[in-house]
Amino acid sequence: MRVAIDAMGGDHAPAELVAGAIEAVSGGHIEVALVGDEASIRAELDSRGGCPDGISVVHASDVVRGHESPVDAIRKRPDTSILRTIQLVGEKAADACVCAGSTGAAVAAAMMTLHRLPGARRPGIAVPFPANNRNGVCLLLDVGANPHCRPVHLAQYAIMGSAYYRAMFGEAEPRVGLLNIGQEEGKGTSLVRQATQALRSEPVNFVGNIEGRDLFGGAVEVGVSDGFVGNIILKAAEGFAEVLLGQVARQVGESNPALLQDLKRRVDYAEYGGAPLLGVNGVVMICHGRSKARAIGNAIRAAAKAVEQDINSHIVRGLNEESAGIQS
Amino acid sequence: MRVAIDAMGGDHAPAELVAGAIEAVSGGHIEVALVGDEASIRAELDSRGGCPDGISVVHASDVVRGHESPVDAIRKRPDTSILRTIQLVGEKAADACVCAGSTGAAVAAAMMTLHRLPGARRPGIAVPFPANNRNGVCLLLDVGANPHCRPVHLAQYAIMGSAYYRAMFGEAEPRVGLLNIGQEEGKGTSLVRQATQALRSEPVNFVGNIEGRDLFGGAVEVGVSDGFVGNIILKAAEGFAEVLLGQVARQVGESNPALLQDLKRRVDYAEYGGAPLLGVNGVVMICHGRSKARAIGNAIRAAAKAVEQDINSHIVRGLNEESAGIQS
Repeated sequence: MRVAIDAMGGDHAPAELVAGAIEAVSGGHIEVALVGDEASIRAELDSRGGCPDGISVVHASDVVRGHESPVDAIRKRPDTSILRTIQLVGEKAADACVCAGSTGAAVAAAMMTLHRLPGARRPGIAVPFPANNRNGVCLLLDVGANPHCRPVHLAQYAIMGSAYYRAMFGEAEPRVGLLNIGQEEGKGTSLVRQATQALRSEPVNFVGNIEGRDLFGGAVEVGVSDGFVGNIILKAAEGFAEVLLGQVARQVGESNPALLQDLKRRVDYAEYGGAPLLGVNGVVMICHGRSKARAIGNAIRAAAKAVEQDINSHIVRGLNEESAGIQS
Repeated sequence: MRVAIDAMGGDHAPAELVAGAIEAVSGGHIEVALVGDEASIRAELDSRGGCPDGISVVHASDVVRGHESPVDAIRKRPDTSILRTIQLVGEKAADACVCAGSTGAAVAAAMMTLHRLPGARRPGIAVPFPANNRNGVCLLLDVGANPHCRPVHLAQYAIMGSAYYRAMFGEAEPRVGLLNIGQEEGKGTSLVRQATQALRSEPVNFVGNIEGRDLFGGAVEVGVSDGFVGNIILKAAEGFAEVLLGQVARQVGESNPALLQDLKRRVDYAEYGGAPLLGVNGVVMICHGRSKARAIGNAIRAAAKAVEQDINSHIVRGLNEESAGIQS
């Protein structure tokens, strides 16, 4: 099992990505290919006692910067670390990959290099959040790969999210809810009203419309929204959590650092293994830019598990069972 | 100064509403009219030592239930406590009102009874949230009065939210941001792209697009979104906070109850005085259904302050200055 990682992506590159890779290979059954500027990566490995068994370095001379158009960068520059990372998956030189750099660049590179899974209309990013359900975690998708959704995209997100949740968290029939401003049918935008109808005929355990509270409150395992709403929820939840954590830190940070650490972990989705880009023909795990070694290690392990669970076969099977009536 | 309150609205009616009213009149300069079933309200007052100076009771025989259509209830039933509460404002028998029952019913009753302010296209509900800015609070509007927005509605929300923030929190030039999935112009839905252009020519301190993190992170005082997105943010933030608070409670609830209380207060928007329905010709403060006495007391005081600050004159003046070019 070999996982490629863009060692130059994220706020703490390459140090924390190298450290996360070292942690991940320590278990023995995962190998990691660190992709990026070889000199920087080797220097980082040397500062941590050398290159351990299971780690290899793949040189890439270029890097996508935060301020540039991700699509342009992927199209025009053939040797960026993120493109090379995803190409390793396309070339079967890696089984999966982990990216903590520009999310837009990861999505663009995956679309151009790996292409969509058969039957998948649009890929979606599924973020794990803490939730008061049996597994303590819910998935929300899409959170930004597809801001302009049609009903069929939402229906497919339900199928893809269910397949991922089932494979990764062992829940036989994950409950799926559609994010809306009330539980009653007929509420909300025309997109969600049409999607509600579409979801009723899909091979998923659809429980109906849900509100934001239900998502975290344990009413579902999978929440579906368009990428515009999902991205705003993701960022708002992050921001709101930061305000609360700041308050906890001011009041008990010194007397109870363990509480603060624990809360921080709970709000950091990379702790749950990163956010998979579902619907592309490969396993691509996206991490928050601020991920540190522990979160990166978790994402590498989650990527490996998704491969072992053969997640994309489950998704393709689910999409094949998709209601033939939903073509809009 | 007389504030009417729907004593039958909310999860803890009438007990906590009566208790909140008693708290609010203790300061001396506010009178409160408790509207609803007189026998229940009098019994509640009796159990708290009788009816204090400054409190009066206005009987209403009916109540809007949670499961019914708010618009139908307001249209068809003339003696519901929420309609009577808002009518007191329309009849000038009260200067402002506070409602913790059905938000939909409050909006419908306010629209039918008080009507819109001159120049206001659609009313919007502005929720105060904790934020890392100078005043420790930001406003988000709309959070559900208007799920189907046009660009001009968002531009007006910026004007109304700025006027309210300025009057209530003493910030001369509140910064306004438009909720989007990135700060760059050109991102997001066609609604937000058009609204970005509209906002540039409005008499507000518009800082551009913001993400959910910026809203709570202190980048703005006022965040503007359509009612669909705003309502989902509101509910998601509530739900996410509940998961985090549950964790804090499990870990330190017994050893540090003060921390838990403080965090609960910070996430409860009624602690900041409830959520005003802006754009109607009267002061209507909406509280969360689960509000307890302290939050209700704060909302009554905030309603009184909004009247003292003559908030609606400021809003009308702002709308009159509105760019003549924005008519879409």
